[in-house]
Amino acid sequence: SQPLSLIAGPCQMESRDHAFMIAGTLAELCAKLGIGLVYKSSFDKANRTSLSGKRGIGLEAAMEIFADLKAEFGFPVLTDIHTEEQCALVAETVDILQIPAFLSRQTDLLVAAAKTGRVINVKKGQFLAPWDMKNVLAKFTESGNPNVLLCERGASFGYNTLVSDMRSLPIMAALGAPVVFDATHSVQQPGGQGGSTGGQREFVETLARAAVAVGVAGVFIETHEDPDHAPSDGPNMVHLKDMPRLLETLMAFDAVAKR
Amino acid sequence: SQPLSLIAGPCQMESRDHAFMIAGTLAELCAKLGIGLVYKSSFDKANRTSLSGKRGIGLEAAMEIFADLKAEFGFPVLTDIHTEEQCALVAETVDILQIPAFLSRQTDLLVAAAKTGRVINVKKGQFLAPWDMKNVLAKFTESGNPNVLLCERGASFGYNTLVSDMRSLPIMAALGAPVVFDATHSVQQPGGQGGSTGGQREFVETLARAAVAVGVAGVFIETHEDPDHAPSDGPNMVHLKDMPRLLETLMAFDAVAKR
Amino acid sequence: SQPLSLIAGPCQMESRDHAFMIAGTLAELCAKLGIGLVYKSSFDKANRTSLSGKRGIGLEAAMEIFADLKAEFGFPVLTDIHTEEQCALVAETVDILQIPAFLSRQTDLLVAAAKTGRVINVKKGQFLAPWDMKNVLAKFTESGNPNVLLCERGASFGYNTLVSDMRSLPIMAALGAPVVFDATHSVQQPGGQGGSTGGQREFVETLARAAVAVGVAGVFIETHEDPDHAPSDGPNMVHLKDMPRLLETLMAFDAVAKR
Amino acid sequence: SQPLSLIAGPCQMESRDHAFMIAGTLAELCAKLGIGLVYKSSFDKANRTSLSGKRGIGLEAAMEIFADLKAEFGFPVLTDIHTEEQCALVAETVDILQIPAFLSRQTDLLVAAAKTGRVINVKKGQFLAPWDMKNVLAKFTESGNPNVLLCERGASFGYNTLVSDMRSLPIMAALGAPVVFDATHSVQQPGGQGGSTGGQREFVETLARAAVAVGVAGVFIETHEDPDHAPSDGPNMVHLKDMPRLLETLMAFDAVAKR
Repeated sequence: SQPLSLIAGPCQMESRDHAFMIAGTLAELCAKLGIGLVYKSSFDKANRTSLSGKRGIGLEAAMEIFADLKAEFGFPVLTDIHTEEQCALVAETVDILQIPAFLSRQTDLLVAAAKTGRVINVKKGQFLAPWDMKNVLAKFTESGNPNVLLCERGASFGYNTLVSDMRSLPIMAALGAPVVFDATHSVQQPGGQGGSTGGQREFVETLARAAVAVGVAGVFIETHEDPDHAPSDGPNMVHLKDMPRLLETLMAFDAVAKR
Repeated sequence: SQPLSLIAGPCQMESRDHAFMIAGTLAELCAKLGIGLVYKSSFDKANRTSLSGKRGIGLEAAMEIFADLKAEFGFPVLTDIHTEEQCALVAETVDILQIPAFLSRQTDLLVAAAKTGRVINVKKGQFLAPWDMKNVLAKFTESGNPNVLLCERGASFGYNTLVSDMRSLPIMAALGAPVVFDATHSVQQPGGQGGSTGGQREFVETLARAAVAVGVAGVFIETHEDPDHAPSDGPNMVHLKDMPRLLETLMAFDAVAKR
Repeated sequence: SQPLSLIAGPCQMESRDHAFMIAGTLAELCAKLGIGLVYKSSFDKANRTSLSGKRGIGLEAAMEIFADLKAEFGFPVLTDIHTEEQCALVAETVDILQIPAFLSRQTDLLVAAAKTGRVINVKKGQFLAPWDMKNVLAKFTESGNPNVLLCERGASFGYNTLVSDMRSLPIMAALGAPVVFDATHSVQQPGGQGGSTGGQREFVETLARAAVAVGVAGVFIETHEDPDHAPSDGPNMVHLKDMPRLLETLMAFDAVAKR
Repeated sequence: SQPLSLIAGPCQMESRDHAFMIAGTLAELCAKLGIGLVYKSSFDKANRTSLSGKRGIGLEAAMEIFADLKAEFGFPVLTDIHTEEQCALVAETVDILQIPAFLSRQTDLLVAAAKTGRVINVKKGQFLAPWDMKNVLAKFTESGNPNVLLCERGASFGYNTLVSDMRSLPIMAALGAPVVFDATHSVQQPGGQGGSTGGQREFVETLARAAVAVGVAGVFIETHEDPDHAPSDGPNMVHLKDMPRLLETLMAFDAVAKR
């Protein structure tokens, strides 16, 4: 197996400067540790808890910055799309198109994403069993695109709580696609703060260690230099300064998992 | 309180003749029992389990038939929309726009639906707590449309199973919107048949009786003259011939609930 | 079907005077409404959240009071047992032996209870599916005692929350035993108050209405003249003064359910 | 931190010869790998799904064999107790008394176990949140016995399924007691085979790797030379011949976790 890849970045693309700062830090760190980096940011947060939640920088501005980031750092980039129309536009620049968990059953969106030929990272819906991803995967492959990553991000467990069932990782891997563990959204507490979604940053490492020991192709970790003031997903983003130690630890587990 | 209303019809609009047959039967039955009827059908099933699942008759054909049904029977009609673009088109003809459960957090879709001024029936996501619907409701009211129905359709309970928490009905009613209980999709078994979604028709009456006794503004029941051969949701649709006895029973409970 | 029976009383037997006061009030009320009453109290709370939780009056004292209550009011009485040794002792006086939910899989306890020949009310474990009660029921019937009531009291739903799946009522009834709905413990919030268990008294009526409309042999409702100061289960006991209206409502639903 | 300990053995004590065979194999293996071994077997399976499930060799016979095993191999032994009376009897021979998950709230049993002064391994009830173990732990410490291991063995997740929430490991460790992960019972499918409980042996390694990477004091793995013909828990016991590779892997993860 290949060593662990990392999908990381701030939840939202906030500005060119911010993107370059985070990207530079991550690129340097991953080069040092021998980790393949995919840079992730959202240009639009389309399913905020409240209307007043910040939505993001917008598609056009984000594509320009993504192009410049790629030119500067040479890494592939990933962003999430929410409508069929966005797929082709985003695919001009972005290497991996991500399907949000809530939208993992929306056939037209999946087919439009598949048709771009880009790699797809599809989040497992919080309402799906791991074996249900067989049908989701088939919507891509039957549309001619077998380049799909299956991403675990927690399952509904009572109200306002997600649970990460580590059995889902081998179950999804057996479907024939590389599996990614999203350690950031797996510690969300949906609706847990009234008008916004809460999170448990302190368990990102717990769940990431577990997933890497089970064996995954990649791990997804959102990060920010000041998460408590980030425009979205602050409670579950990892401090940028904590990434070196976290990634070193995960790489050590990955080496055991794949030896 | 007003007596119980009924949202009913076949899951998919299959053809003009089929629509008129079901609509005529339901209209006559509801007139006899004093039930306010909203006729429901989908023009597109956008989140089928598999690519091979039948999608429906399409938007344009459906709108014509809806218009003719309204002219003939005088009832309001309801259909579900999946993209922002569909909202204004559908709103020309359809009285109640329904937001699917998976899409209950998609801000742009909710705002576009709200802007039509039509009544909205929003399904509670299987991944949401009943109190989370406060934020969903606010997305409509803050967009200037307070005419919203909140619809319970089951919560994720382990894998491939939904559970109906009857506490959600008074919790959502306390948010200030009429509450509808969807007895059809609450008995779905998501992914429970491999390539399609299963269901437990035998529990539609169980859950509908429970919800009506707790007290709801309306009940949502899909029906078909031959559900075992219906193009979608067959396992959880009620036989058309069983509707009279079921509705009589529910009206008797409703009378006690609202006395 | 027989009309609805009621299992009611204060959670703990607190004193002779208290027992007679509650019993007298309930006996009069049930006579007026034509409800068969089973008087319930615990002599020992064996699974309190904390060591400091009040345990109860004790077996011997309770048996004397139960005997006197029966002599005075003529109703059958019910209490819960926790060890094999208690079964025969309690069965001398008590008509219905109740198996606590946590103990619903403890074979020796079930067999000892069965051997007394008394009626058994077995609570469905919070960790069991309704169809799992087939095996629990068989432990009694294979021990020669077919007089078993199956009691729904909620299923684990995430952490610190129970959910009442109304489908469990017909599923358990199909096993061939009368089904009772415990509206008091179904609204518990296990561990929800740190050192004690919380509850949602406001949903007792919600769930009881739902269960009665679905159709049950009996309903179980703990009651107290001052629940906020009761030694256990205060947050989910119904005020004694609210019982008349609640029972009238439930009897009206029961009449529709069984017509 | 100390390196990983192992609690292992066949689910039931089947016979002296069988016990010595398994114990010898495990003792040799653990000596080679530097793992502290606690030998586990049950003398009575008190909560079998059906009356016809095999119960075990009995207390007296088991205590003799445990004493001889200790004399021969020098390891501590562990067994589970189900009644207050058993506690003192078992404590004469057995080093660690285990409280079954279903009984984790039974105060008298917990106090009787605590009073023996022996180490206690208490399984977290399938119906408990990890933070609820604070109250369970306090029942032991307030009874004068602080030598308690807290054991994760899965939480109820819908019907007939358990899920292992890896967050529970650090949450319970923060209560101040060593944490053990039971990889055998965490893969049970309660009631999943009708008259007996099913299991998913193939996920024992998955969950054990995850737990060890998160960091635990010990791991609990039942093993048998022929699990498919074992009298209980066969579907979730590991083949004895697979233990060497499994334990080597876990020790490698443990070394990373505790470096």
